[in-house]
Amino acid sequence: MNIGILGTGIVGTTIGSKLIHTGNSVKMGSRTAENQKAAEWVKSNGKNASHGTFKDAASFGQIIFNCTLGTGSIEALKSAGEKNLNGKILIDVSNPLDFSKGMPPTLSVANTDSLGEQIQRTFPNVKAVKTLCTVNCNIMVNPSFLPGDHDMYLCGNDQKAKNEVTDILKNWFGWKSVVDLGDITGARALEMHIIFWVRLWSVLQTPLFNFKIVK
Amino acid sequence: MNIGILGTGIVGTTIGSKLIHTGNSVKMGSRTAENQKAAEWVKSNGKNASHGTFKDAASFGQIIFNCTLGTGSIEALKSAGEKNLNGKILIDVSNPLDFSKGMPPTLSVANTDSLGEQIQRTFPNVKAVKTLCTVNCNIMVNPSFLPGDHDMYLCGNDQKAKNEVTDILKNWFGWKSVVDLGDITGARALEMHIIFWVRLWSVLQTPLFNFKIVK
Repeated sequence: MNIGILGTGIVGTTIGSKLIHTGNSVKMGSRTAENQKAAEWVKSNGKNASHGTFKDAASFGQIIFNCTLGTGSIEALKSAGEKNLNGKILIDVSNPLDFSKGMPPTLSVANTDSLGEQIQRTFPNVKAVKTLCTVNCNIMVNPSFLPGDHDMYLCGNDQKAKNEVTDILKNWFGWKSVVDLGDITGARALEMHIIFWVRLWSVLQTPLFNFKIVK
Repeated sequence: MNIGILGTGIVGTTIGSKLIHTGNSVKMGSRTAENQKAAEWVKSNGKNASHGTFKDAASFGQIIFNCTLGTGSIEALKSAGEKNLNGKILIDVSNPLDFSKGMPPTLSVANTDSLGEQIQRTFPNVKAVKTLCTVNCNIMVNPSFLPGDHDMYLCGNDQKAKNEVTDILKNWFGWKSVVDLGDITGARALEMHIIFWVRLWSVLQTPLFNFKIVK
């Protein structure tokens, strides 16, 4: 499948490499077509890897991953162009974390709204599915790095899109348990949970952890 | 030990009964001394159970549990009287959940502040320790109801108070793993995590669950 990834940071490149290794073609998109980090990533990921602008990546992808920083995601998606996103599944991995005011970090949107909802409202014809944002990127694409069972979550308004993303999480990324949190307002839960995750990161002194639901 | 509990709802009475069963004397406090629910609880909990006003419970207790609704906690604590709380450990179990605007619920304070911090600021000479608020009250006092390992958290500014609360959680309530999230700003993490918990409650269709850290 052709997949576009918006954002060439550690999250975007880690997901990109995993998608290449599972047989997909990936175009990384960034603000400028000459992004050095994206060019290096392409070099080390073979013939199915390419890069370009946000617009290039969005028009290339049958599915799009949003791996930009949460505080810049809406702007990045606007740069990608609504017509290049419309009708497609947008897997939103971003978190609206704001570290600019020191620790503990805050969210740029929270409680009565969420970034996931803002994205869905701004691009009503996109099938936004929020997922993966609750773990470190190495766990996102390699959940078996952690011992035993643990859970991934997703939410979104389009059930068919969520089913397809669940298949991607299970078949390509290796997740065994994917819990559906309902419509896109579930993004509030996932994004607010991140503050808990960040706090625990500082206590555990490692980002390599996740949670298992015990019931 | 003499323990005061503010709030006679399901959380307060469940914790109260557990404290009685572990050999303590408990006074339940509510807005009025003639609270019917508290009177019934006293009848079924024997000679070490009593009830009265918030003020009565606070002056009785060597340790105080805040089990009032989060949106009314500051007011309830003010009714209890600062001088009856000063110098004591205040175990804050409350959540600032606001269901008045429908589902999903919101928090009355979040992101840049928390109820735990508000309580500590309003009562600077109280040793506030936030804990237990992340699970259903039946799990709070009976963690072994759930299979296997799972985690409880606490935070607060006073290390000695946190050590004492950890002992209470382990020895009286049966918790095996209690994770210290640092100072009282950790209350933001715990309270924002509740939104995630509530969402999952509606998905799992039971409040009888918790999380285990997998690392």
